[in-house]
Order: sequence, then C-alpha cells, then structure tokens
Amino acid sequence: MALSKQNLRGLVLALVSSAFIGASFIIKKQGLRRSAAISGVRAGVGGYSYLLEPLWWVGMITMIVGEIANFVAYAFAPAVLVTPLGALSIIVSAVLAHIILKEKLHAMGVLGCIMCIAGSIIIVIHAPKERPIKSVLEIWSMATQPAFLVYVGSVIVLVFILVFHFSPRCGHTNVLVYTGICSLMGSLSVMSVKALGTSLKLTFEGKNQLIYPETWFFMLVVVFCVIMQMDYLNKALDTFNTVVVSPIYYVMFTTLTILASVIMFKDWDGQSGGTIVSEICGFIVVVSGTILLHATKDFERSSSFRGSQPSSPTLSARLFNGNGDLLNKEEEENMSPDSMCARRQELY
Amino acid sequence: MALSKQNLRGLVLALVSSAFIGASFIIKKQGLRRSAAISGVRAGVGGYSYLLEPLWWVGMITMIVGEIANFVAYAFAPAVLVTPLGALSIIVSAVLAHIILKEKLHAMGVLGCIMCIAGSIIIVIHAPKERPIKSVLEIWSMATQPAFLVYVGSVIVLVFILVFHFSPRCGHTNVLVYTGICSLMGSLSVMSVKALGTSLKLTFEGKNQLIYPETWFFMLVVVFCVIMQMDYLNKALDTFNTVVVSPIYYVMFTTLTILASVIMFKDWDGQSGGTIVSEICGFIVVVSGTILLHATKDFERSSSFRGSQPSSPTLSARLFNGNGDLLNKEEEENMSPDSMCARRQELY
Repeated sequence: MALSKQNLRGLVLALVSSAFIGASFIIKKQGLRRSAAISGVRAGVGGYSYLLEPLWWVGMITMIVGEIANFVAYAFAPAVLVTPLGALSIIVSAVLAHIILKEKLHAMGVLGCIMCIAGSIIIVIHAPKERPIKSVLEIWSMATQPAFLVYVGSVIVLVFILVFHFSPRCGHTNVLVYTGICSLMGSLSVMSVKALGTSLKLTFEGKNQLIYPETWFFMLVVVFCVIMQMDYLNKALDTFNTVVVSPIYYVMFTTLTILASVIMFKDWDGQSGGTIVSEICGFIVVVSGTILLHATKDFERSSSFRGSQPSSPTLSARLFNGNGDLLNKEEEENMSPDSMCARRQELY
Repeated sequence: MALSKQNLRGLVLALVSSAFIGASFIIKKQGLRRSAAISGVRAGVGGYSYLLEPLWWVGMITMIVGEIANFVAYAFAPAVLVTPLGALSIIVSAVLAHIILKEKLHAMGVLGCIMCIAGSIIIVIHAPKERPIKSVLEIWSMATQPAFLVYVGSVIVLVFILVFHFSPRCGHTNVLVYTGICSLMGSLSVMSVKALGTSLKLTFEGKNQLIYPETWFFMLVVVFCVIMQMDYLNKALDTFNTVVVSPIYYVMFTTLTILASVIMFKDWDGQSGGTIVSEICGFIVVVSGTILLHATKDFERSSSFRGSQPSSPTLSARLFNGNGDLLNKEEEENMSPDSMCARRQELY
C-alpha cells in the first residue's frame, strides 16, 4: 500500500496543481475587484481594464502553472489517482475565499471540505502503482487493445448521437446533453494527455519519442479532444447555472475518466477486491463532498459578493435559471470558485 | 484484508442489530399513531393508550432483539468495527420513515445516507481481526495493563470534574457537560459489555467463565456504567434539543470507544499505517454523514409529522430551542428517528 516514488511525484504534482489552480481564482478575483474599484467600469458591462491590473495576470500565470503541474502529474501517476484529486482545488478556493475575500463558508461547506479530504486520502492510500512504461509504442498497444477500442468506439457513437440528434432538440433544455458530450470527450482527453505526457517525459529522460508517428498522433488527439471538450463546456455554462453544471460534470467526467483508465491502463489488475472497493468508496465520498460544497454555495449565493467581474467574455450571457426567472447571474457565475473549478476542468 | 469468520459473524450481527433498531422506531411510531387515532388521547398529554396497541409492543420487541444482537456482536468483532456501524440504524429509520411514514427525505439526507454507507464499507474492509480469547482472565489482564488503567483513571477524573464541578454550574447551558459524561461512561460501558459478552460466549461454548470473580466484576461494571450513561443521556435530552445532542454524542461516544478499544484490545497492533488511516477516514466519513442527516432533518422539521407520541415520559419537557423560542418539541423530539438513535446509544 506504500506509495511508489513515481506515484509520490505524481501525487505531489497533483496537490501543487490543485493549490495553484484553487489560489488562481482568488487572485484573479482580487485583481478584478481592484481594477473595478479604480476604473469604475466593470468587465460585465464591457470593460477590459482588468487587463491592466497586475494581480489579474498573477492569477492567470498561477493558473497556467497549476495546469502544467496537472499535465505533468498524469505522466507520473495513474489517472485513477490524479483525476479525483482535482476536487481539492475547490477546497483551496473555498477556504481562500473565506480567508481573503471574507466570503462566508457555510458549516455544511466545511463538512464538504472535510469529506473531500477524507475521500482523497482513501483514494491516495489505495491507488494502484504506475506501471513503468519504456516507449510510446507500449502506450500505443494499450490504446489499440480491443477493450479500449470498444470504449473509444462507444464514446464516438454516443458523442455523435448527442451532437447531431439530441443537441439541436434538447441541448438548451436538458443539462445532460452538453455536459455529457464534454465528459465523454474529457475521458479521451485525459487518456491522450497521459499518453503525450508520458512520451514527453521519456523524451526528456533521453529516450526520444518524437521519432515515432504515434507521439504526434496522440498530440493531434489531445488538441482535438480538448478543444471539443472546452467548446461544449462553454456551451453548457452559457446555457445552465454553474451550480447545476459543475457537480454533474465533475461526477460524469471523473467517472468516465476512471473507467477509461481502468480499461486502457488496467489500473485494477493485481489489486485486491477490498482495495478496489475502497477506491470506489473514496471516490463516492469525494463526489458527495463536492456536491455538498456546491449545494451549500447555492444557499449562500444571495449573500455572496456581487461586485466582481467576469473573467471571460464568452460567458457574458443572461442565464436562464431553474426557477424560470431570467437573472443576470454573469458576475457570480463567472467569478465564483464553482464556475472556475468547472472551467479548469476544461483542460483535463 | 479478508474478513475472518469471527469478524464476519460480528459484522452480520451488527448489521442485523442496526436494521432491527432502525425499524423499531418506525414500528413504534406507527403504533403510537394508530393508538392516538383510536383513543384520541395523545401520550404527550398524559395518555397511555399506546400500551394497548400491539404494534407498539412489536416495535418494543424489535428494539430489544436489536439491542441483544448488538450486545452479541461485541463478543465476536472488535468495538472499532461494531460501534461506528451503529450509524446505519439512522439510515434504516430515515429510509423507512420515507417509505412507510411518507416523511420527506431531503436530497442532502440521501447524500448523508450514501456517505454513512461508503464510510461503513471502508471501516469494514480495514477493520482489525478479532484476536482469539480463551478466558476472561485474558481480558482481565488487558483491562489491568498500565495504558488502559491510565485511560480508565483519566475517564474517572474527568467524569468527577464534570459531575461535581461543571454540572451544577453550566450543565444546563453547555451541551458538552452532560453529553461528555455519558460519552466518557459510554466508552467504559462498551469495553465492559465486550468483556462480559466474550465471557458469556465462552461459557456457552462450554468453557464456563462464571466461576471466575472477574466475570461478575465486569457484570457490575456494565450495570453501573450503563445506568450512569442512560441517566446523563436523559438529562442531556431533557435539557437540549435532540438535533444538537445526537451528533455531538455520536461523535464523542464513538471516538472515545474507538480510543478505549485501541488501548485495551490493541486493535491497531500489526496493522499498516495505510489501513489505520483508512479506518480513521472511514470513521470521519460516517460522522460527516451522520451530521448531514441530522442537519437536514432539522430543515425538514417544520414539515414533519407532528401527531406522534412520546415513548418515554421522562422526555416530556418543553425544550428551549436554539432560536430563543419556547417550543413544544416533545412530540417530534421523542419520536423522530434522531432522538431514538440517540436513545438507543444509551445502551452501547
């Protein structure tokens, strides 16, 4: 049950990544607050003064560093370990929002944080060891094994059906359509990111993998899957409330990624039944904690800070909320740790 | 990690116990409803017609069977395994209240149930094996080892301070005084119940332990500790709202029992660090789930069934609730699954 050196590196990178990404939301939000206080013009009504605020850029850089750490983590540890730990960035931003931005953290939110941590510890303790990989060709043979090809085939068929049949009919009324598309694509993104990351790691170690066309193929897959995932996540966030989208997306994305990783990398081979069940329970606990954090965020919504600005113009849309009211949610939507955590999952 | 035959028996008994105790609350409540509907007199205003209602007696018997199963479970499996599983009775009664009594189960309550189950599974997977015990004298030597004597001594000193110093001064204003006393005594109750249960088990197996004065001493300790624990639990429930008392009591009682068991029975000896950490995380998850269930019960309080009767006249007191209002909470207080689960912990 002891962590291997490889796993430990991946774990530390995943934790650093969550800390940076969680902190980046708060730094950016501070930057937006400052720029709004100085210029008096809010980004939500067309202002771009936040681009002149150094703090906003510090936040941007913090986020990019976090995303790179996350990318590298996949090269060292199994996706079954790295992906669920993404939930910790929600805790970091919730706690920092409480300390720095003085946003109230609901007692149930604290409970959600404790659960995410307890669940993450259980996942870390029972995570499978990363198998040593010597060449991109090994990954290629794993990616082309019949079981994984069946998974990829099913994902492609489902995505086609969702995009061409359901998307035009009920994409704007059923939250599962867009989030389903980006979760399905997300599981392929993570697998290809892991393949590419491992190839680059081997290349840096002196075993050049760029001579193999397989490496370049994985790179193409990463670009295609990540762009499609981002596009549909933006559509989902433009159409529905973040508080609804985030937990559904987290659950579907993480579940599908674990499924894909278990099929492709055979993470569970050689693990005892008890260990696998513990991992699944740990994952359920993290998911429950995430849902609790998001649900209690909703309770506090009316009392939360409303003077912040959107970080991305693509989200500046009046959102139709579940009660049938047309509300201008853009400010909270774009700057709440919720929406940011959802947005960061854009990438992996 | 595989369960030993002894542990498995203890586990099944603990689960049966939770099912019976959880169900007994609902059956009793149904009985009280029926008797109130027939006689028109409610127990809360002095009626005792529920004693003529067969269903109420069925509930009583179900509860006694459950408590016996719980008692026997301690003879087969470590307290570290049996005690936290008591939380499952809360789930059983919450689910049955939803199905049979048509009481609404909050979405967050469902999440609390899922967490209690996930946490319990983690505890069961990582529970230490029950060590084979051949005689009550073995238990006696464990109970008289210096480390455990220090624990018992500390408990006695703390209980004395709480009873004679804090109880008269702030017993009626600070919820931790009465619940502290019954949690501290509770941990000794469980240890002596386990000693007595194991002795009786050995006696039934043909190795008569009643010839040893140690067995009779443990019996005296059980009687004394259980009576004191019940007395102070009643005081706590008479003075404070069940919704406040139950989770605090569950957390303190279970934590102290695990601590006592780890010291006396050396449950964690020979277990790996990862296993112990997993157990602790599993326990934290169960506690969080219990808190969530209780907290959401509170939200639903106003809409819950108000026509039921108290099962015990000792609780018929007008309780002062947290908002500063004097409310007649006696009906809900006494018959809600919350308060019943707290009451059942009276015993172990």
